[in-house]
Amino acid sequence: MANWQTLIREQLEKDRDEATALLQEWVKNASVQGEEESIQESIAKTLASMGLDVDLWVMEGEELLSHPYFVSPRTVFTGSPNVVGVWKGAGEGRSLILNGHVDVVPAGDRAQWSDDPFSGKIEDGKLYGRGATDMKGGNLSSLLAISVLQKLGVKLKGDVIFQSVVEEESGGAGTLATILRGYKADAALIPEPTNMKIFPKQQGSMWFRLSVKGRSAHGGTRYEGVSAIEKSLAVVQAIGQLEKERNDRLDDPLYEKLPIPIPINIGVIEGGKWPSSVADLVKLEGRMGVAPGEKMEDAKAEMAAALKRLAEVDPWFAEQPVELEWYGARWVPGSVAEDHPLMNILHRQFEAVTGKRAVVEASPWGTDGGLLTALADTPAIVVGPGVTQVAHYPNEHIVLDDVFTCAEIFALALIEWCGVAEQNTQN
Amino acid sequence: MANWQTLIREQLEKDRDEATALLQEWVKNASVQGEEESIQESIAKTLASMGLDVDLWVMEGEELLSHPYFVSPRTVFTGSPNVVGVWKGAGEGRSLILNGHVDVVPAGDRAQWSDDPFSGKIEDGKLYGRGATDMKGGNLSSLLAISVLQKLGVKLKGDVIFQSVVEEESGGAGTLATILRGYKADAALIPEPTNMKIFPKQQGSMWFRLSVKGRSAHGGTRYEGVSAIEKSLAVVQAIGQLEKERNDRLDDPLYEKLPIPIPINIGVIEGGKWPSSVADLVKLEGRMGVAPGEKMEDAKAEMAAALKRLAEVDPWFAEQPVELEWYGARWVPGSVAEDHPLMNILHRQFEAVTGKRAVVEASPWGTDGGLLTALADTPAIVVGPGVTQVAHYPNEHIVLDDVFTCAEIFALALIEWCGVAEQNTQN
Repeated sequence: MANWQTLIREQLEKDRDEATALLQEWVKNASVQGEEESIQESIAKTLASMGLDVDLWVMEGEELLSHPYFVSPRTVFTGSPNVVGVWKGAGEGRSLILNGHVDVVPAGDRAQWSDDPFSGKIEDGKLYGRGATDMKGGNLSSLLAISVLQKLGVKLKGDVIFQSVVEEESGGAGTLATILRGYKADAALIPEPTNMKIFPKQQGSMWFRLSVKGRSAHGGTRYEGVSAIEKSLAVVQAIGQLEKERNDRLDDPLYEKLPIPIPINIGVIEGGKWPSSVADLVKLEGRMGVAPGEKMEDAKAEMAAALKRLAEVDPWFAEQPVELEWYGARWVPGSVAEDHPLMNILHRQFEAVTGKRAVVEASPWGTDGGLLTALADTPAIVVGPGVTQVAHYPNEHIVLDDVFTCAEIFALALIEWCGVAEQNTQN
Repeated sequence: MANWQTLIREQLEKDRDEATALLQEWVKNASVQGEEESIQESIAKTLASMGLDVDLWVMEGEELLSHPYFVSPRTVFTGSPNVVGVWKGAGEGRSLILNGHVDVVPAGDRAQWSDDPFSGKIEDGKLYGRGATDMKGGNLSSLLAISVLQKLGVKLKGDVIFQSVVEEESGGAGTLATILRGYKADAALIPEPTNMKIFPKQQGSMWFRLSVKGRSAHGGTRYEGVSAIEKSLAVVQAIGQLEKERNDRLDDPLYEKLPIPIPINIGVIEGGKWPSSVADLVKLEGRMGVAPGEKMEDAKAEMAAALKRLAEVDPWFAEQPVELEWYGARWVPGSVAEDHPLMNILHRQFEAVTGKRAVVEASPWGTDGGLLTALADTPAIVVGPGVTQVAHYPNEHIVLDDVFTCAEIFALALIEWCGVAEQNTQN
């Protein structure tokens, strides 16, 4: 093993500049929802040049669109293909999926970025740009794990399936499409930005929309009306109370260090039409966390009950109940045993490479891991080099050293998990 | 006088159907901001057919646009002309402006209307539609006051100046334009919807915009961020506290019966971009009442101070103070002595026509009256037949009997105020 580690590390150092340039190129490609075609074609080419069996396709079809776990604001994905590249093994080894999404969230308020949100700029060992951390840096680690072993002439026993999917940020339709296309494996790694913590359990989440009613009136006689803006204050407070109750009863030690393990975030508020009128409608949109192992239907029922209880504190809500709608993005929670064989491998290789013990936690956000675990019988573990705090944030960046550290750990994990069939040391 | 009252009442009854049809036509004309051309041309025609000197013009020009009291979201008013019709008097009498706006606010949530918002439908003695009460019904009362005296062969001493203006709902640019064009008089009546209460004092008001800051983060780790939505709750509560303080200290007996005489209404809220992200910016837009006799600058200073005090309850506001902007619509408060000669005339004629004493109050909302009082040396009194509670509301309507009662009172007031030069009883 020590030999592998040295060989892998030296090869990664040789390839570092070229790999860094590739990541920069990926980050500069603004692959927001609907704009993923060029980066996916480029990735497909890269995989083909590595001798992988490449599958590049635009997802469609009834089976996908009517699947109970299909979630997307759209049903036509032209311009947003999926890419899968399979590095076939010699046989009789465990297979591994390396899954990552290529879609990135919008840049947000440009004024809060120091540079162009898609600059790819490198400064002080960090590479900047939307998607650097979430999660193109991690995808590079996966790619490097394969390429470094190839350069070392390794042939594995088990297949390695590299997946670059779309639509993760909106609910997982891309990964769902790979599952329906038949891709499965004995396990999966997803290098979402975890600060290199290992998440054997992943939070689910669901988007909700609340409609808070009021009664219109002229602003000068506002007491004639009922302000939906004032009523929404009570709703926001009730949601905060529900969040507190749900988190207070968690006892999973994996969540100990998180201030709010299973948050309910209200992300958007919009209501009222005219400064001189009392607002008669306010909409709130947000995201509710679902604990690993919790049924999504149970979480939904708790939200509905909390909103119903509002009528007890304010009779207005008995007259005009808050409307609740589950819509849009939804991530299935996932759960892998903490002593799963792949977990043990990751622990071992993490210590070997970094000299430290890995931190194990439950993830604070949804990923496509739950889909793989629940639908494809592919236990998924989430671990990656990105900086959690800057995902979806202005001035998103990744620490380049972490990308290569993760690549090293992944390469070693591939060796242990898939097994080595042979090694050709002619370079 | 009894003779005038009988003559006027009988004439109004003769003209009732035709007048009702005219109001219905006005209400069906959806004269929202920017869409007033056709109704104004129709009104200009009507005034011309009554022999008035008609002035129909689109306001423009530096003097208007750079005037300190100019307020409008736009600077080009093509499609939104003003109309003034002057019924010249014989001379040596007091003149009177009958001012009314023709622009109406948007219909709002269509689902809350029983019929089309511009139906003009008549049912149980009420005429329905946006603008019926605010304030086309009142404008008809003004028009009828002139036409009924003309039909009775009356010639007044003083001029009567009928004004149909635009841009009242946005801050008074239309009336300002009439003032800059030179129209002034010894007094003015504005039949805004007062339920036939007489308002010698009118509230001013100003539109404000607040920007509440947060700090963005992923919704799953929302404790890394600061929710501008949560912070805006504190801001809304602070505004409520300021409103309470300002109203608690009022001692004008005219305001006794109003629950909140000088309200601060927050009418619009908008913030956040993504359900899965912590909102980093929320905007609130609203309307702050200014008491008659209060300086607008003093009211502005109180708002700024209240927002500053937020830092004492939450250090976030010291780090990221709420931004305050005064924008858009502003109505100057107005004040006429309660024993002004025109007030006495109105009291007298109100009792003569209705058999009851008029109720005198201070208005709960801004009107163009303040501009006339402050800028044109034209004391303005607000009194009109509309139903205050349904202005800006779904299912807005007016009681037709009230329109004709008001017309009768106005006609008698014209006789007393302007004086009769002669009467030709040949019809």
